[in-house]
Amino acid sequence: MENIGYYNGTFAPMEQLSIPALDRGVYFGDGVYEALRVERHRFFALKEHLSRFRDSLAFLRIAFPMTDEALTAILQEAADRVESDSQQLYFQVTRATAMRTHSFPDSCEANLLIFSRGVPLADQKEYRRVVVLPDTRWGHCNIKSLNLIPSVLAAETAKERGCSEAVFHRDGIVSECSSSNLLMLKDGALRTAPADERILPGVTRAHFLMLARELGIPVDETAFTLEEMLDADELMITSTSAHGLPVGFVDDKPVCGRDEALLRKLQKAYRAFFWSEIEANQ
Amino acid sequence: MENIGYYNGTFAPMEQLSIPALDRGVYFGDGVYEALRVERHRFFALKEHLSRFRDSLAFLRIAFPMTDEALTAILQEAADRVESDSQQLYFQVTRATAMRTHSFPDSCEANLLIFSRGVPLADQKEYRRVVVLPDTRWGHCNIKSLNLIPSVLAAETAKERGCSEAVFHRDGIVSECSSSNLLMLKDGALRTAPADERILPGVTRAHFLMLARELGIPVDETAFTLEEMLDADELMITSTSAHGLPVGFVDDKPVCGRDEALLRKLQKAYRAFFWSEIEANQ
Repeated sequence: MENIGYYNGTFAPMEQLSIPALDRGVYFGDGVYEALRVERHRFFALKEHLSRFRDSLAFLRIAFPMTDEALTAILQEAADRVESDSQQLYFQVTRATAMRTHSFPDSCEANLLIFSRGVPLADQKEYRRVVVLPDTRWGHCNIKSLNLIPSVLAAETAKERGCSEAVFHRDGIVSECSSSNLLMLKDGALRTAPADERILPGVTRAHFLMLARELGIPVDETAFTLEEMLDADELMITSTSAHGLPVGFVDDKPVCGRDEALLRKLQKAYRAFFWSEIEANQ
Repeated sequence: MENIGYYNGTFAPMEQLSIPALDRGVYFGDGVYEALRVERHRFFALKEHLSRFRDSLAFLRIAFPMTDEALTAILQEAADRVESDSQQLYFQVTRATAMRTHSFPDSCEANLLIFSRGVPLADQKEYRRVVVLPDTRWGHCNIKSLNLIPSVLAAETAKERGCSEAVFHRDGIVSECSSSNLLMLKDGALRTAPADERILPGVTRAHFLMLARELGIPVDETAFTLEEMLDADELMITSTSAHGLPVGFVDDKPVCGRDEALLRKLQKAYRAFFWSEIEANQ
């Protein structure tokens, strides 16, 4: 099939899948999610995604008794039902289905929703454009929650201005992008905001930091300002779907391109790591 | 019927109503809502709610071409299908049904979801308990969006501590409660935070301010601190469903009760206004 949807035991094409209107995801966004790359029907970094997923559930105090093994079996079945060799698999868990009351229902049975479809890996070569916007999100951006309106609005603004992403800042301090992290190369070192409550601890971000360290590249997890960003040798947006994409324009101003050798070296290391993990994950 | 649900032309009991899993409300919370009191099948302050609803839609840039008249007819039909003489009617509009991509779909057809059921008006006499929590919400709390996780978590904490509501503060400055506004009486004057981006411009809040002015009570829309709150003569939480409820305990500490005459006078004025509006709304 071209795509698949799943909800609490039922598989159907995404366009035909229904859920109860009383799912708390519908009216509160009361849930968390993850998105996974699936190549040749094998998951990349599943363990890391499941670990972050459990952290998000714990923060929202959502009880999801299904084991990682049982969940993985369902995710695998979803991926296997889609023909494409290069998928983006999305899953979310919401707290319960219940009458609308803000506090938790007396008895909560979590809901599992899955979408998977073919989405090719992004082109890694081309320098992308980004727009800069104020970060007006809530105080817990480390939680991968379903409350995504700020990212939706920022992504739309980026698209309208011909950009791939929106870079968020709080009072001039860069946090991350609307659905990716932002990494900077300067004087041969890799720098990115620390994994605190202002950014999502990206799995791809962590892998780039790990690979940089392996390559002997100094790594600095200290937030940088907009001015420092504009003075970067290179910038990269990293995410599960994008891997690491170079940034060449900020608000239509040409930037970067001053250390392409190091940028490409990191991309190459990531690509090798990515495919070796896929290979190993039999 | 005991309750009714509605989605894009279809009526069904809330428990039986389904919506497409690809509604952007489900995975982004990409929509806005309103909640209305319905007494004897007549709406209270419908015009004010519709006006705020249009403001929220405009902020999120959601196109909802249905006229207020057409929407009102559907809301009325929903209310009429429920037997109860005292209902809480909820409606939400989401941007579109589409494959999950943050930016807006090329073609957007908004979705209308309605719930209505019997919910009695709250007892107005008893002094309530509230808990104080940091306000970690996003920067546009004046928008009545479906991204409600912070309010969900705060309401649950309040409930667990035997409280009716959670009072939010940012660095010691009181904003509002998890799903209501907070008003303070001090030295014969009514004070509440200004209707800026830190609070929802409550319809009930505005009515209390209007009635206070009519009664010759000075009104001050200046934010107050937690210390000032604890020193209040009286505190009231106001919302569409609660009307105006007195607060007698903050974090288990007894407060207020020092100007009950003025508090009851305001409650009485609100009650008279509420019922006269219901009567007039034939």
